[in-house]
Amino acid sequence: MELWAREFHTQDMVMSYRIKQTLHVEESQYQKIAVLDSHQYGRMLMLDNIVQTTELDEFVYHEMITHVALNSHPNPRKVLVVGGGDGGTMREIVKHDSIEQAVLAEIDERVIAAARQYLPTISCALDHPRVKIQIADGIQYVKDTKDEYDLIIVDSTDPIGPAVGLFAQEFYRDLFAALKPDGMFVAQTESPWVDAKLITQLHSVLRDIFPTVKLYLAGIPTYQSGQYSFTICSKQYDPLVIQPGKPELETKYYSPEIHKAAFVLPPFIQDIVDGR
Amino acid sequence: MELWAREFHTQDMVMSYRIKQTLHVEESQYQKIAVLDSHQYGRMLMLDNIVQTTELDEFVYHEMITHVALNSHPNPRKVLVVGGGDGGTMREIVKHDSIEQAVLAEIDERVIAAARQYLPTISCALDHPRVKIQIADGIQYVKDTKDEYDLIIVDSTDPIGPAVGLFAQEFYRDLFAALKPDGMFVAQTESPWVDAKLITQLHSVLRDIFPTVKLYLAGIPTYQSGQYSFTICSKQYDPLVIQPGKPELETKYYSPEIHKAAFVLPPFIQDIVDGR
Repeated sequence: MELWAREFHTQDMVMSYRIKQTLHVEESQYQKIAVLDSHQYGRMLMLDNIVQTTELDEFVYHEMITHVALNSHPNPRKVLVVGGGDGGTMREIVKHDSIEQAVLAEIDERVIAAARQYLPTISCALDHPRVKIQIADGIQYVKDTKDEYDLIIVDSTDPIGPAVGLFAQEFYRDLFAALKPDGMFVAQTESPWVDAKLITQLHSVLRDIFPTVKLYLAGIPTYQSGQYSFTICSKQYDPLVIQPGKPELETKYYSPEIHKAAFVLPPFIQDIVDGR
Repeated sequence: MELWAREFHTQDMVMSYRIKQTLHVEESQYQKIAVLDSHQYGRMLMLDNIVQTTELDEFVYHEMITHVALNSHPNPRKVLVVGGGDGGTMREIVKHDSIEQAVLAEIDERVIAAARQYLPTISCALDHPRVKIQIADGIQYVKDTKDEYDLIIVDSTDPIGPAVGLFAQEFYRDLFAALKPDGMFVAQTESPWVDAKLITQLHSVLRDIFPTVKLYLAGIPTYQSGQYSFTICSKQYDPLVIQPGKPELETKYYSPEIHKAAFVLPPFIQDIVDGR
């Protein structure tokens, strides 16, 4: 028997992975959670049939959603991660000694449980002494927070299901208020090949809220199109400038040179960002 | 009825595209040629069931396989393209006024015929007065040529079927000899995510032949992993330096900034190049 997991990247494009074994399937209060062991990318976490992270390519996403902001903020002490229940983002955050507390606001405790059990190389920092886990609706959590964080990372699923509100204007205004006066915000913002309209709209909304809004790119094979985007918003610091005194990080994708190169956009992607 | 075209990116990973219409299918002397109209990427050319080019993302591949070399060579006059029967590479080459002659050595005239008929936006420069089409085995064509070209581009299929010899050491020695003393050579060299061993091996072989060998990257959604590589070899000029007096090109992916950023490799890809 051959077992294949299929993911609809769009209604017109499907990626399928040959599977060794189904390790875990459950229906949580919020979504369908599955951990599959694939031949191509090792173990993969799927939420509502969409690949969230895999053992073999997760490092790109987790390094790139964290170190760009953490290296361009001169002294990040307090970080909030909205979503990110698999723990990979936390694993990268705690590489920075300046961090005093990193709060994970994950709505679905079952994602954390599945990651702890089946994805130890990704979830390994969830018990780190500087990490605090809050099982909470990130939208409400951010709304209730004022002037507290140096950095907020929205490590969410795609804008469907429980993550819809994480792509709404009101949420970004609350995010701005939850950040300190020199704070930064990073989110995964889909692929310019597949979600151009979403990126145009997001950047238009975010530019009304934050003085600096930039898109940057990374190659992530298991996400739609393989060319994926992040958006970084800053109240004060230039996200392209690496602050002095930063640690030399053990990373496989991120480097100080990649930090800068990731912001260089092909003209057609710059057009998407600018709504042209 | 739903029609889907499936491509095995590896034996463990399949990409499927929903198809509006099958425009053309034939078995040529060398390979199976198909042109399909897809919902996601417009018309696509498939050779032996592998996507070669699509209307919507072809510009990345064709701009990046040409302009990096053409802009870092001070005065490219004579260019040879091995393969490239769809014509997209030629369309980009003739944007450079310095080019006096661009020779296409394509083994399969049926690919050219299919592209002329079904992919006019890609094949549009094949009748350009500075383009000369040779229906020929590229390997033999290169072997018979000495000290003639400023630039040779290997715009080939993957290293299976008729393209196997295009990834062999002897071919690269012949290429070196076919180039002028300040010539350059560019080839598509697969994805570091899927063909790491091939890239390690190629670079080891090429460094024994050319003084400068560099890998650069581009995001190409319809190729395996979406993060694709090219290798540029140079006898004299630095491929990272854009020569003065180059024309401002009408491009959607390439730009002088992308030219430089494309050479910035994530550490794990640098390790692949260096065989670590």
